[in-house]
Amino acid sequence: MALIVQKYGGTSVGTPERIKNVAQRVAKFKMLGHQVVVVLSAMSGETNRLIALAKEVQPNPDLREMDVLLSTGEQVTIALLSMALMELGLKARSYTGSQVKIVTDNAHTKARILDIEEGNIRADLDAGYVVVVAGFQGVDEKGSITTLGRGGSDTTGVALAAALKADECQIYTDVDGVYTTDPRVVPEARRLKTITFEEMLEMASLGSKVLQIRSVEFAGKYKVKLRVLSSFDDEGEGTLITFEEEDNMEQAIISGIAFNRDEAKITVLGVPDRPGIAYQILGPIGEANIDVDIILQNVGADGTTDFTFTVHRNEYKKALEVLKGVQAHIGAREVSGDDHIAKVSVIGVGMRSHAGIASTMFRTLAEEGINIQMISTSEIKISVVIDEKYMELAVRVLHKAFNLEQAA
Amino acid sequence: MALIVQKYGGTSVGTPERIKNVAQRVAKFKMLGHQVVVVLSAMSGETNRLIALAKEVQPNPDLREMDVLLSTGEQVTIALLSMALMELGLKARSYTGSQVKIVTDNAHTKARILDIEEGNIRADLDAGYVVVVAGFQGVDEKGSITTLGRGGSDTTGVALAAALKADECQIYTDVDGVYTTDPRVVPEARRLKTITFEEMLEMASLGSKVLQIRSVEFAGKYKVKLRVLSSFDDEGEGTLITFEEEDNMEQAIISGIAFNRDEAKITVLGVPDRPGIAYQILGPIGEANIDVDIILQNVGADGTTDFTFTVHRNEYKKALEVLKGVQAHIGAREVSGDDHIAKVSVIGVGMRSHAGIASTMFRTLAEEGINIQMISTSEIKISVVIDEKYMELAVRVLHKAFNLEQAA
Repeated sequence: MALIVQKYGGTSVGTPERIKNVAQRVAKFKMLGHQVVVVLSAMSGETNRLIALAKEVQPNPDLREMDVLLSTGEQVTIALLSMALMELGLKARSYTGSQVKIVTDNAHTKARILDIEEGNIRADLDAGYVVVVAGFQGVDEKGSITTLGRGGSDTTGVALAAALKADECQIYTDVDGVYTTDPRVVPEARRLKTITFEEMLEMASLGSKVLQIRSVEFAGKYKVKLRVLSSFDDEGEGTLITFEEEDNMEQAIISGIAFNRDEAKITVLGVPDRPGIAYQILGPIGEANIDVDIILQNVGADGTTDFTFTVHRNEYKKALEVLKGVQAHIGAREVSGDDHIAKVSVIGVGMRSHAGIASTMFRTLAEEGINIQMISTSEIKISVVIDEKYMELAVRVLHKAFNLEQAA
Repeated sequence: MALIVQKYGGTSVGTPERIKNVAQRVAKFKMLGHQVVVVLSAMSGETNRLIALAKEVQPNPDLREMDVLLSTGEQVTIALLSMALMELGLKARSYTGSQVKIVTDNAHTKARILDIEEGNIRADLDAGYVVVVAGFQGVDEKGSITTLGRGGSDTTGVALAAALKADECQIYTDVDGVYTTDPRVVPEARRLKTITFEEMLEMASLGSKVLQIRSVEFAGKYKVKLRVLSSFDDEGEGTLITFEEEDNMEQAIISGIAFNRDEAKITVLGVPDRPGIAYQILGPIGEANIDVDIILQNVGADGTTDFTFTVHRNEYKKALEVLKGVQAHIGAREVSGDDHIAKVSVIGVGMRSHAGIASTMFRTLAEEGINIQMISTSEIKISVVIDEKYMELAVRVLHKAFNLEQAA
């Protein structure tokens, strides 16, 4: 007998019919003798409907009240699933975030979980109940309802699995696992049976949308065994996220290729090469609350230096304005930018022990005439910034160059 | 400065536009220097939508989960109204029933309020907030969400007014007050400026739908000053429900005429006239959980008696079956019934000190050829049961006979 936490997203509970299907699946696990905790999102579309209602009465809605409003979405689905489970003859009981309680800080609409009081849930599980918990929501110490932000239901699932010391946390979604890359770009993309936690973290932060990054971080911190599965496929075993680099033949050097076009590049040319210049450039950016991703600095021969960094594309215009405002002060010759870039990354724990990954990557792109504008590396990933128009091509040729279509 | 509790029904908060109108009205009271607590229902139609969803997954839905589901309706409106109030520059804060907390018993879908912890609300009011509370819902001692049943938002409003010792509890609805009778039946019906609590209780129990009877009982028990107003009319002063029979010229002998066709009549003919026969007839009815309203017994000359009573029309068939099952045992000659009856009542505290009300009523009906089947009286009302087809006629002629179209 195992204790399993299952999290179902909005598409999986989007209609009464689908809720009944989820109940069937839960019943299957229960019949096998497992204890099951289910974490649910709101019905797909419901959160957007509620946000639209809010904006009709307050264009810039108050965040505390936004959480009161949005938390109704999961409250509806947990009641409906509990009913569907009872209709199948199971014992079931729903809990809102406040009822569990899932204690968070008071950062409304993006709260962080501080503690979970798991006593009632454990008692219900021991009494044979399926426990159905509202994802995405919690309660602050004053009793106000909070929400964890978009994708927060994954975090609820992982946090509950950690608190209950569950044997596995299963994230049911509309894809059947983690792929070597997005199959819409590379039809040969292959589902991974396993991926390490570190790789998953890079995949999530570099643009793979399968799991929300905070839930992966949480799983890493509390060593929760995570599995990504499709809620529309009864047979699949999905992708298991592991913590050890298992020493087996399955382990590939490269696990996957992530990409995104969320970023824009800003270049400051011909600034005097003196100590503190990086701070003079990035200080005003930070003060404007703009996050910076990749940073590059090239020292020129004439005592000046060129400075390049990337920001989220939504903040491109704001960042350019900030820098043009300080251009004279820092003595830069020119401030320019490009918001038609893409970031493509190869990821794999295997590259720690294998040289030559970077050169294969750079050679493959060069053979296609794709110019690399920026490079950034970590122990288990290499990212390049290229012209946006080559993004899909780059992903396809790299997928082939690293033989990702074949199981290692 | 007064402390006012305002309750708005589902029609009044049915759209974002109407919610903004409610915010304007609340702002007006706030600007006059009053402290305001607002109690809201769900948007009209929302409760029915949620019930339909529930029945799709569980035809006979679990009551605990039903309450989890239904309570989301008011949670949506309290968040939206709080936002709308803030948009007008007011300080506002929402509370669900659990957050207040409004402690109830655990009779899900028809819970009764046991206690209200009003400390947080009072602190918010003193800090200048408009407090917006979800009607219709509470929380039991284990922390499960409960609901008070249809119309329960009125009860929440009155209970809060009692707990906070509010100066007035204003019930906003889609009519502008309590009328001498339903204006759809008698166009000359007149809005009452005041009505006594006892009269209102009779009006509510005898078919007037303006206020839910439990909320009137609650108001009576805790001496809450209630006012019924229209949420679509800014100028009206509605109807005030008072506790004293004020000794002024305004006080009429008869305040209003109530009517309903919710009942059916059952007659047991020719039962032996012996002690205990009433119990032998009504015992089985009570065991079948059927409520009885009017009861009449006529003793005949031949040592038998005829026994007549009314039940809710929905339970007519069931009641007939029960009695036919025991007919032989109690020795009745015949069990018959009629589900085409109506009850018409004249109500007024003035009849305590005025004779002749009954004779005026009976003469007026006789002049129209309307046969009276049953009569039931209390200190302040006289009800008659007549053939359903004469109901509107009876209401019209009685309204005229008692001069109700003219202010007293």
